[in-house]
Amino acid sequence: MLATNPVENLQALIRCPSVTPAEGGALSALESMLAPLGFKVERMVAKADGTPDVENLYARIGSTGPYLMFAGHTDVVPPGNDADWSHPPFAAEIADGMLFGRGAVDMKGGIACFVAAVARHIEKVGAPDGSISFLITGDEEGPAINGTQKLLSWAAEKGETWDACLVGEPTNPDALGDMIKIGRRGSLSGRITVHGVQGHAAYPHLADNPLRGLLQLTRALMDKPFDHGTEDFQPSNLEVTTIDTGNPAVNVIPAKATAAFNIRFNDSWTAESLQAEIIRRLDHAAADSELRPGREPVRYDIVWNERPSHVFLTRNNGLIASLSGAVEKVTGRAPALSTTGGTSDARFIKDYCPVVEFGLVGQTMHMVDERVSVADLETLTDIYGTFIANWFDNARAA
Amino acid sequence: MLATNPVENLQALIRCPSVTPAEGGALSALESMLAPLGFKVERMVAKADGTPDVENLYARIGSTGPYLMFAGHTDVVPPGNDADWSHPPFAAEIADGMLFGRGAVDMKGGIACFVAAVARHIEKVGAPDGSISFLITGDEEGPAINGTQKLLSWAAEKGETWDACLVGEPTNPDALGDMIKIGRRGSLSGRITVHGVQGHAAYPHLADNPLRGLLQLTRALMDKPFDHGTEDFQPSNLEVTTIDTGNPAVNVIPAKATAAFNIRFNDSWTAESLQAEIIRRLDHAAADSELRPGREPVRYDIVWNERPSHVFLTRNNGLIASLSGAVEKVTGRAPALSTTGGTSDARFIKDYCPVVEFGLVGQTMHMVDERVSVADLETLTDIYGTFIANWFDNARAA
Ligand SMILES: [Zn+2]
Ligand SMILES: [Zn+2]
Repeated sequence: MLATNPVENLQALIRCPSVTPAEGGALSALESMLAPLGFKVERMVAKADGTPDVENLYARIGSTGPYLMFAGHTDVVPPGNDADWSHPPFAAEIADGMLFGRGAVDMKGGIACFVAAVARHIEKVGAPDGSISFLITGDEEGPAINGTQKLLSWAAEKGETWDACLVGEPTNPDALGDMIKIGRRGSLSGRITVHGVQGHAAYPHLADNPLRGLLQLTRALMDKPFDHGTEDFQPSNLEVTTIDTGNPAVNVIPAKATAAFNIRFNDSWTAESLQAEIIRRLDHAAADSELRPGREPVRYDIVWNERPSHVFLTRNNGLIASLSGAVEKVTGRAPALSTTGGTSDARFIKDYCPVVEFGLVGQTMHMVDERVSVADLETLTDIYGTFIANWFDNARAA
Repeated sequence: MLATNPVENLQALIRCPSVTPAEGGALSALESMLAPLGFKVERMVAKADGTPDVENLYARIGSTGPYLMFAGHTDVVPPGNDADWSHPPFAAEIADGMLFGRGAVDMKGGIACFVAAVARHIEKVGAPDGSISFLITGDEEGPAINGTQKLLSWAAEKGETWDACLVGEPTNPDALGDMIKIGRRGSLSGRITVHGVQGHAAYPHLADNPLRGLLQLTRALMDKPFDHGTEDFQPSNLEVTTIDTGNPAVNVIPAKATAAFNIRFNDSWTAESLQAEIIRRLDHAAADSELRPGREPVRYDIVWNERPSHVFLTRNNGLIASLSGAVEKVTGRAPALSTTGGTSDARFIKDYCPVVEFGLVGQTMHMVDERVSVADLETLTDIYGTFIANWFDNARAA
């Protein structure tokens, strides 16, 4: 029996407790759906020092172009306290038209629907006139070191070259059809440490309070916007997410203090140009003698997060039109083409081929009682099926 | 043999390892110096929930006025690593004219000299024509809950009333004769917590970063001086001594953040008027809508340290002149009459009688190799002796 039913596909996947980084049977369940369809399925284990080994899956049907990739992940975030759930997180129970379970929308649901769409396509018109692959990782919710990035380079080394990719993450804020993601802001993090001179609060002239310096530096990062947004992107935004000193003695001026920040940046910047701008601001503020009368410049160092996420924007009109047209045809609504929100594994895929993202409604993702309406699973399967047809037609015509 | 030798007195005291809150034999050693001089010595143990029991000593000679009190402490701060000392911290060894040991200047040295000065006075002219008492605590370097404050009220309840007090803390920055303390700034501490709304750094509009609010509030406390000093005091000064968030996830906007501050304030303020000014500044900054466009005022709470130190200034000219004249007569130098530096137990004594402070050179206090020159011990004994004579002459003439 082919895996044409998205609800059954999703129930099978949810019942595998694949809490990141555990495979939990989820990739095997997926394999048992794809193999009968004619996919050649490969399992790839990625390893790195200091991280758990992670199982990944790559499956392809067809041997020629055009070549469409579907990308996603079967790992899920922990369910928290099982007792807080109305229905057990790995039972995939249906109640009042809603299917409950961890991963229902993020994003076993997207996978279940794409599998069903491909199965229906094959049942109706046979294997695609070209190729389709599934690139599915078990390390999206974890450190994302042994996941999509390694799986892509592993497949590329074997000669895989894709024409386009759809990522099945939940992209809709409120209702199916709201939003397609056609790009993502970049993300850059750093940690600033300011070094002062410890001393007693009664003798501040003998000490140098690093918190004064740190506030001066963080102010320089937060007070002035980095830009005012671009045609396709929101303004870049920086948040200082922690300041820590750990000084238990209220009468003692501490020796050092740290702040960490994260900035979501648009296509006005590259990670490199933004780092340079941040350093420029910090150096300028550190040397501002008006803020530190009679003092040396603030002594600070900065450590950058090793792996910034680069900003990207997909400009492949055929890919966007195929997806947008499918959404509009099935739901009657024209989806917003958005670049908002957090990062996703699309940031790795964009180095190989044009990539867009569309999936379920994300409202309950990562929450207790994560759930999806059974109706939405049918609708998304229709959208995916229409997209597949559109995309191959378009690619063949081009 | 009377305790007329300050060096021997100090050696006996240093050899008692009275690391706060331990008595370590130090009060017994002091008792064995005072009793032979004719002092009636009492030992008083103070207790409070959550703090160690502390031994204190009160000794009086004479039964009439004028009544002079000498106040101080025999407890010392821990020596740190013994191996870092050139001479063991509790051995009281003399080398190159310096006597080494924990407490040498802070402030077993001051006690040793005052005992010697009284002993010489008695040896020379007999018991004072009036009364002298020692009010010595074992809880000055600790929480200061079971020390001077309780000892004062215990003695006052028994009917003790003093005309003046000399505290023997090390008051000289560089050389004996530099500085008398005639008052102290107050000290007030508080902890501010700002409550925001947790969220993801990619969706800052759904969150409310408490660090923005906290920086806004701390800026309001630090940017503008509270005053410009007064005739007798330095400007008040506020230091933010810790900011803590404890947020391990750089992509997550935290739910709350805290800052603690300490302010050293002069006689422009009372603790109460200063608290009101701080609240006024915080409320004003919290509601500054320019700094938070489209947001509610910053939600914060503040917890004050339970026991602020009140500012005080001694205006008793006879007391100050007796001490200042003694310093000038012995050293040839006119000491500065200062209100700088940290708080001391004089803040408790000022509620009972006029109080001034004079002792050794403080440079090595609380440090490894704390030490005092043997010559300074002789000089300070002379100064104290001259002060005792001056003060009784003056009190009797008044
Ligand atoms: Zn996801
Ligand atoms: Zn002291």
